[in-house]
Amino acid sequence: MSRIAIVGVGHSKFGKRSDASLRELAFEAYSAALDDAEIESSAIDGSVVCSATHYDKQRSPAGVVAEYLGLNPKPTFSVEAACASSAVGLRTAWALVSSDLHDVMAVVGVQKMTELASKEIQELMGRAGDVMWESPFGTTMPAYYAMYATADMARYGTTEEDLAAVTVKNRKYGAKNPKAMFQKPITPEEVLKSRPVATPLKLFDCCANADGAACLIVANSERAKKITDKPVWVAGLGLASSPMGLAGRKGDMTSFEVTKNAAKSAYDMAGVKASDIDVAEVHDSFSITEILNYEDLGFARPGKGSKLLKDNETELGGKIPINVDGGLISKGHPVGATGASQITSLVQQLRKEAGTVQVDGSKLGHTQNIGRIGT
Amino acid sequence: MSRIAIVGVGHSKFGKRSDASLRELAFEAYSAALDDAEIESSAIDGSVVCSATHYDKQRSPAGVVAEYLGLNPKPTFSVEAACASSAVGLRTAWALVSSDLHDVMAVVGVQKMTELASKEIQELMGRAGDVMWESPFGTTMPAYYAMYATADMARYGTTEEDLAAVTVKNRKYGAKNPKAMFQKPITPEEVLKSRPVATPLKLFDCCANADGAACLIVANSERAKKITDKPVWVAGLGLASSPMGLAGRKGDMTSFEVTKNAAKSAYDMAGVKASDIDVAEVHDSFSITEILNYEDLGFARPGKGSKLLKDNETELGGKIPINVDGGLISKGHPVGATGASQITSLVQQLRKEAGTVQVDGSKLGHTQNIGRIGT
Repeated sequence: MSRIAIVGVGHSKFGKRSDASLRELAFEAYSAALDDAEIESSAIDGSVVCSATHYDKQRSPAGVVAEYLGLNPKPTFSVEAACASSAVGLRTAWALVSSDLHDVMAVVGVQKMTELASKEIQELMGRAGDVMWESPFGTTMPAYYAMYATADMARYGTTEEDLAAVTVKNRKYGAKNPKAMFQKPITPEEVLKSRPVATPLKLFDCCANADGAACLIVANSERAKKITDKPVWVAGLGLASSPMGLAGRKGDMTSFEVTKNAAKSAYDMAGVKASDIDVAEVHDSFSITEILNYEDLGFARPGKGSKLLKDNETELGGKIPINVDGGLISKGHPVGATGASQITSLVQQLRKEAGTVQVDGSKLGHTQNIGRIGT
Repeated sequence: MSRIAIVGVGHSKFGKRSDASLRELAFEAYSAALDDAEIESSAIDGSVVCSATHYDKQRSPAGVVAEYLGLNPKPTFSVEAACASSAVGLRTAWALVSSDLHDVMAVVGVQKMTELASKEIQELMGRAGDVMWESPFGTTMPAYYAMYATADMARYGTTEEDLAAVTVKNRKYGAKNPKAMFQKPITPEEVLKSRPVATPLKLFDCCANADGAACLIVANSERAKKITDKPVWVAGLGLASSPMGLAGRKGDMTSFEVTKNAAKSAYDMAGVKASDIDVAEVHDSFSITEILNYEDLGFARPGKGSKLLKDNETELGGKIPINVDGGLISKGHPVGATGASQITSLVQQLRKEAGTVQVDGSKLGHTQNIGRIGT
């Protein structure tokens, strides 16, 4: 199997970006990635544009993005997997480069959400669940994850304080990330006293809708070595799916089968195990999501996610520092951009360019991104 | 480069399918493709689901489709390129299989359009053009292609009769295709007397919005040979992009640069030229589109597309029979399904299973599919 590397990364400021349109956000990340790789746009022979649908009036946004980035007449792909769009974008680009159809590609994740009213967004998010059997009953994203939180509390005794601790940790690191939407630490009390969104999840248990873009430059082995002396090699990839409807799934609501399956694939492909990983970015759309992910990825045993956090093992200096870029909870969650944002942070870690949040001696990293409600 | 084959194809009835939901249409095509390949669903290790956005209330339709087809927990990709979605889906699957991430994949193109009011569809189609610079000015799809028709008439003397001849040819063959929406021949007079849609395009110059699905089973060389004794090998693939906004394009409006670029890539990869091709499926969203495509694909010289048609060279028995399955004009155009539908017809031709429209001695075929207005 070919060796594929990430040779450049770029990240726009995330947040309420009323100063920038969708295409401008994409350009901000793309041009930063080209600068990072020290290459010209002419070196890119195709793009994978990743954006969740319906947030923008523009259908087929890949068309305007590719035009605005100056990437015509090169092939452009549009890949969508809701909140995991640009993570699946990397897998797609990996295959396109590995198969020799392309040599150097740009994966651009981009989303503009803050122009929509919150109510519209909740409705749209619900329609990322099954519109025949579920969304008519009010299953928005916070409601879905609240059910997981409740189940985890019932089965493992997870508390609201445990959930708040995720936000406190991530906001602490987010304060050090200039690209994050929220750059202010928060106390457990502030989280616990914030207004209910979907019990037991409160406002600060939830990531925020945001505008933003992130870009990855992906190259084959030969080109990667010419472009940079610090390529980050993709050792393994995993992707899995679960039934859209929660009723069709096995097991209880204290883990995501889809995450376990995807992680197993990635670990097998890379020939590693969870304990080999030095640093990770995991999907923390809600505080509960991060705790479940610790377990599903094999960093903690089932029911022991909260303990891993309480033992400070996912902090800088811990066994497996997680989301030390602030996570979605600090950065905001411009859905199409999130996967590429996580990967950007990881690339910086592996290149030892993470500054004040650098994990010492990090050689092997892992990112994990969930689309829809674990679908 | 790996050899990749199509080992099974399936096609739902296209048309107004009020009897079937999106997921049911997908199942109709998928189960037919499994039957055709004589394999079980368990042989499929991933799916690429292709559907243009916004036509269905369901966001991320890949999720419900994969679930309904029984394809969880295998990876599912959602690929979108407006009217060319499932053609780009094949390219994506080709890369995923060629890179060894997958061995046998299903590419499922599916769309359900007829539940929307015509006005809603026109508005949606306009938003597949640039929403900042173009769609606010009324650029729906018929309007876009009418501009191309007018330009071609002005430059090359193409007539309304020439356009009508495309519909007459395609409807003649569509009458023999049990999966087509319109199975009735039409006279030049009927076309010319039909009501104006966007002058010079009249009702019967336009393909119809439709519901439908088509599915391709794609396998690597080793698996393909085990599955079937009639694999259809993919010799070449081409994909290109043009600026979304027409103002950003070079040249006049009598050809699509994007088609010429994509065709060149495909011919180069396969090591063939246009004159080597025995049978073709080309994008005939409008009658004018087919004529321009003859030229852009190299079957006729610039301005000579109409003559190729008048000389009966694109008929059965001609030099290069084109759209002898009836084309979009007869089959209808469920946008996400159209690319896979064209490829299905071509596979049947190359396997000598095209019945009354079989092209004698066809060994090399070509399909071409346009997303948005040549974007």
